[in-house]
Amino acid sequence: MNRVERVRAGETASIARMISRIERRSDGVADELAQLHRAGGHAHIIGVTGAAGSGKSTLVGELTAHYRRAGRTVGVLAVDPSSVFSGGAILGDRIRMSALSGDDGVFIRSIATRGALGGLSRAALDAITVLDAAGKDVIVLETVGVGQAEVDVISAAQTVAVVSVPGMGDDVQAIKAGLLEIADVHVLNKADRDGAQKAYAELRDMLRFAPRTDWEVPIQRTVAATGEGVEELATRFDEHHEWMSRTGELNRRARRTAATRIRWMAEEIVLDRLRDGEPEFDREVDQVADMSTDPLHAAQRLIGAL
Amino acid sequence: MNRVERVRAGETASIARMISRIERRSDGVADELAQLHRAGGHAHIIGVTGAAGSGKSTLVGELTAHYRRAGRTVGVLAVDPSSVFSGGAILGDRIRMSALSGDDGVFIRSIATRGALGGLSRAALDAITVLDAAGKDVIVLETVGVGQAEVDVISAAQTVAVVSVPGMGDDVQAIKAGLLEIADVHVLNKADRDGAQKAYAELRDMLRFAPRTDWEVPIQRTVAATGEGVEELATRFDEHHEWMSRTGELNRRARRTAATRIRWMAEEIVLDRLRDGEPEFDREVDQVADMSTDPLHAAQRLIGAL
Repeated sequence: MNRVERVRAGETASIARMISRIERRSDGVADELAQLHRAGGHAHIIGVTGAAGSGKSTLVGELTAHYRRAGRTVGVLAVDPSSVFSGGAILGDRIRMSALSGDDGVFIRSIATRGALGGLSRAALDAITVLDAAGKDVIVLETVGVGQAEVDVISAAQTVAVVSVPGMGDDVQAIKAGLLEIADVHVLNKADRDGAQKAYAELRDMLRFAPRTDWEVPIQRTVAATGEGVEELATRFDEHHEWMSRTGELNRRARRTAATRIRWMAEEIVLDRLRDGEPEFDREVDQVADMSTDPLHAAQRLIGAL
Repeated sequence: MNRVERVRAGETASIARMISRIERRSDGVADELAQLHRAGGHAHIIGVTGAAGSGKSTLVGELTAHYRRAGRTVGVLAVDPSSVFSGGAILGDRIRMSALSGDDGVFIRSIATRGALGGLSRAALDAITVLDAAGKDVIVLETVGVGQAEVDVISAAQTVAVVSVPGMGDDVQAIKAGLLEIADVHVLNKADRDGAQKAYAELRDMLRFAPRTDWEVPIQRTVAATGEGVEELATRFDEHHEWMSRTGELNRRARRTAATRIRWMAEEIVLDRLRDGEPEFDREVDQVADMSTDPLHAAQRLIGAL
């Protein structure tokens, strides 16, 4: 079997190697991703975001265990733009400590690129393609939600869950407000803590400012440390998926992601060709520099020659 | 005469209208710029940058007056990314107060775009094309030099002058250090002030860290308010231009700018085609969304169809 076939067979080591190839933009990976893309479209892609300290990672672990008990396979991708190097170690610990280690139905991985934030969003999107083609039933994309970069990453998800905890103060309220418009499900974690009822009421009040659709954004209380509310949270996700399928929203989100993927790919193809040292490019640069042609016609010729 | 011909005839009002068309990206402007580009290549493009308060604007005014006395025509473009709306007013005052008002051999204009900083760099580059085609002998590109955006703008110049003044403190030293590698000429303005000798010595010491070429970066002392040193500064610029012509550096810089112009144009052509609502794009998005094709082949087809 070739690399693509081994990924499609769900081999854990082959999936890991393919994602490393994506992070490094190895030769031939664009073509492999093209094949993998056509083999996908099965997974429910769930984004989980929220401030550090919200217990997000524990929640994702419990959610994964729940899905496994229900017989569903899971891929987890952790994206933390602010901490490219620590992510892997933390995840490694989590896997070793977890009952899930050794289970081929689960794949857990952090995504790291040393380049621009755009590169990280793109690597995350490509890793989803891999896990989808590998047949995972659920893909969980976990980010630390603080800025626009994380919002870009999380927008690749079909269902977005924003995690809050009681008593995080005004700063966190601002973050929640920023994430409000992308949340399909709100999670109030550590719901056994003091102040949980107040935080729930605040969240509910904030939801009045959310854009109106016929999907009523639920607030699910959880205590990730004990697993309380996790099964119900999975049900909320299923309900959202069912609503998206029924209303055409699933297709609308798939189209949005497809448009992003096509634009990124086109950009890569064009800039790859318009690189110093490429003979056609250098020839056009010479002629634009000496005014014998102009940038518009040079660009048209270069694109036409692709 | 059409728009392009009127610009080439040097008509002030037509130049102003063409730059407004650039700022708005009006229909047909890409084609007009292509014609104007081929008519250019004559002007010496001088970038003048430095922190606010360095007397840069006064210096540019005196420099312009000097060039006019020497019979050379001048275009001035002021770019201030941090102050899109004030620029025009300040320039307006400067023109009204100036002996240059009513002189058709001078064109002064601020560049403003409400879009991204990349848009500003691009508008500045296109405005240079206009002034060059209009036959200006010298084009002065004036920016407030504090960040990467300003460095991007100023890199369109053939000769870059960085203006400092005595006693601006450590913060400004950091700015100067950032601009050090792009300076072809250093200007120590307000050189009649206390501390001028110390500032001169500091600048000279800093120049030891500048990249080595066979152009020795001069430090010119000026007192813009009285015009002192301005003629000598113009001589430094001429010497730099002569050195660039002699060594091939002028062509190297023209090629660098040409490559940037071609890439921007290609990006515009491609993204214009890859827009929601374009039938070919929407068709590919549908097929990528339903996995009947993939982003790579969709992008290749869309680019191939351009």
